[in-house]
Amino acid sequence: MSEVTRTLARYVVESTYADIPEAVRQEAARALLNWAGCAVGSSRHETVECALAAIGEFAGGSQAGILGRRERLDILNAALINGISSHVLDYDDTHARAIHPSAPVLPAILALAEWRQFSGEQLVHAFVLGVEAECRVGLSVFPEHYERGWHITGSAGVFGAAAAAGKLLGLNEQQMTWALGIAATQSSGLRAMFGSMCKSLHPGHAAHNGLTAALLASKNFTSSERAIEAPRGWGNVLSTKFDPAVITAPFGERYELMSNMYKPFACGLVVHATIDACIQLRNEHALQPVAIAKVELTVCPIVMELTAITDPKTGLEGKFSIFHAAAAAIVFGAGGEAEFSNTAVRDPRVVALRKLVTAAPDPELRRIAARVTIRLTDGRVVSKRIDNALGTLARPMSDADLEAKCRALTDGIIDASQTNELIRLCWSVAALPDAGAIVRAAMPTV
Amino acid sequence: MSEVTRTLARYVVESTYADIPEAVRQEAARALLNWAGCAVGSSRHETVECALAAIGEFAGGSQAGILGRRERLDILNAALINGISSHVLDYDDTHARAIHPSAPVLPAILALAEWRQFSGEQLVHAFVLGVEAECRVGLSVFPEHYERGWHITGSAGVFGAAAAAGKLLGLNEQQMTWALGIAATQSSGLRAMFGSMCKSLHPGHAAHNGLTAALLASKNFTSSERAIEAPRGWGNVLSTKFDPAVITAPFGERYELMSNMYKPFACGLVVHATIDACIQLRNEHALQPVAIAKVELTVCPIVMELTAITDPKTGLEGKFSIFHAAAAAIVFGAGGEAEFSNTAVRDPRVVALRKLVTAAPDPELRRIAARVTIRLTDGRVVSKRIDNALGTLARPMSDADLEAKCRALTDGIIDASQTNELIRLCWSVAALPDAGAIVRAAMPTV
Repeated sequence: MSEVTRTLARYVVESTYADIPEAVRQEAARALLNWAGCAVGSSRHETVECALAAIGEFAGGSQAGILGRRERLDILNAALINGISSHVLDYDDTHARAIHPSAPVLPAILALAEWRQFSGEQLVHAFVLGVEAECRVGLSVFPEHYERGWHITGSAGVFGAAAAAGKLLGLNEQQMTWALGIAATQSSGLRAMFGSMCKSLHPGHAAHNGLTAALLASKNFTSSERAIEAPRGWGNVLSTKFDPAVITAPFGERYELMSNMYKPFACGLVVHATIDACIQLRNEHALQPVAIAKVELTVCPIVMELTAITDPKTGLEGKFSIFHAAAAAIVFGAGGEAEFSNTAVRDPRVVALRKLVTAAPDPELRRIAARVTIRLTDGRVVSKRIDNALGTLARPMSDADLEAKCRALTDGIIDASQTNELIRLCWSVAALPDAGAIVRAAMPTV
Repeated sequence: MSEVTRTLARYVVESTYADIPEAVRQEAARALLNWAGCAVGSSRHETVECALAAIGEFAGGSQAGILGRRERLDILNAALINGISSHVLDYDDTHARAIHPSAPVLPAILALAEWRQFSGEQLVHAFVLGVEAECRVGLSVFPEHYERGWHITGSAGVFGAAAAAGKLLGLNEQQMTWALGIAATQSSGLRAMFGSMCKSLHPGHAAHNGLTAALLASKNFTSSERAIEAPRGWGNVLSTKFDPAVITAPFGERYELMSNMYKPFACGLVVHATIDACIQLRNEHALQPVAIAKVELTVCPIVMELTAITDPKTGLEGKFSIFHAAAAAIVFGAGGEAEFSNTAVRDPRVVALRKLVTAAPDPELRRIAARVTIRLTDGRVVSKRIDNALGTLARPMSDADLEAKCRALTDGIIDASQTNELIRLCWSVAALPDAGAIVRAAMPTV
């Protein structure tokens, strides 16, 4: 396997938009809509405020906008900040096996698109290729790389940003090979940071560094030409397992973007099946919290490890409480950011109900499955078993679900009319003469 | 070893300038002078031109200067570019065992000093602490980390830049702990890049990212508080060996800066003893190239591996030719950048003489030792044995040597009168009210 980096570079360079199947283009629009909602929704989060306060005064010209905010920065810093906000809520998309694909890639190429007025078709094309690059590189070392301690969304995401930005910049094969190499030598991001603001710095850093790599390569800044596969290249240095054939497998037969998932609920995937079941039971039986005697959850054992907080005090703690998630789903009929706010966690109805929730592990349940049994004070018992939580590949969120998620996330940050326009632009992205219109639609006008 | 990162952070925060011994302060001035010459000397190198062409139009305000050039950029991009130019010639300082200490640290803190007018005393203090931090962190995983494939000047250098910049910014212990954590999660740089422009991108990236880490931490951007020592922290993820006691060993008993070496010759350390011997023989015996019949080198076996090019065509190839190095030293009596230029490599006198040079390995010679025997056409034989090449800790370059090196590097880039001023400012750095004066002195005025 002598030319892994160059083979990937050649594919990205030679791919034409006509090669991309319609279903993949559609999935790109869905990912874009989901991402835009997440970025707007977290644009006033403390993590984003801190980052902007720290780097704002060093940023260059007004080249690219920050979603959900009024600031415009140079493209590199815009990519950094939008990359951070993409992931702050942990509500962005998830590749079936490895990575959050959009957060490192879209901030890089949307910033470029704003600056150079690339078309929506070019944006979609670059995005699909970026996701393909980062997922293939990531999967070539998965899961050992992740288990060793690398946050793969950052460490592999930088390849996606470099490939996608390089495609927009029109790099030739040699330059694209360098871009992937410059990306490789900036690859970073430790899982030890989970629980701190650095977790969302990782995709921001990947977007920033991948874009930097493509810009450097466009001026013929050189790197190793075997950066990924060399004996001391990225694959061997950052992982105990490296399978280069994953990267060079025939291109175009399937697309990694088609394995992308969108979260309907603003918490870890392992909580989704429980929320899903609770909302369905609530709606099917018009359940009133006061009429409930007991809520019995049966879940995958990992759920008991990850989300065992019984009496959360903050919204963030609520995301790690299966008890809160179930109670809030029954009280509010939803599991969005609002249901994981400090207010929701302290709501007396939720506090009262979550004391009635018990959870038991069942090793036969997968992490996307759950059983919920609700015993009512009048003696009735209702129950629901979920095998594939809403949002997983077997039960994807519908386009309407994605629109509703976007509306909930942008509410209070941009006008409803702007959100309508943002949604319209995302669905019609491939027809836009200037893809930067998406960013502008996501910035508050008043 | 529960608080490695915090212990290092606490030391950096609590250290006072009065704690730093006079000899260490003096060594800081020597390192500064050596570094400034290197940065000016490579400021028009293709690698620097490429990097500036790629990122210049995205840089922010005119906050900090680029040594040897007229451009002024925001402090983060200035740190990046000055970090690159520090290392382009591979002529910058070398810690006895691990790292090029100045290249990641000085660009970060000089940019800060220009922007915020920090004093020379503050600069020296921050520099000493930054070198201590990066060397301790680097040595805690050395040599396994390097052998695994990490370019330690980048991967450990980022800690030095963060610690030093954080010291100037006045971070408290908690913030400094975060700064080191944010540095850890940006740590990168692969040895696979050696031979490409990315090698010097690494200290530039380290300077940029370490400064970013300190700025983020100053706004309370959080990271893991056990970033270095956590089970999946930097030490365990990026190395197969990690000895945290190296980082927390008693502070102030010795300083890593005192193990710093400066290269008198513009090539790898392994070539130094040969050049040293040739120049001494030339000068002691007034040797004329045309009077030489044969030059016999006996060297450490590694020299035969690393510098075996017999007929170099370019200056860069000349750096990897022990034959060229010896011939040029005899012809010119020096081993600076000029003697490793394309012109020098193609000089007919040098070409003729290097055909008369032979080299043989001797496993008993260390890499900083060599024997040179020169047989003259009149039958005379002169020879010299070097055990410790000039520039090593046992035979450090004198202050006058460092001045001469700086003059040779800056010649043709800044005026001789400016170089005089630059040298004067470096020697008196600790007395400067505004350390940024050093950068301004190193920028062309006409």
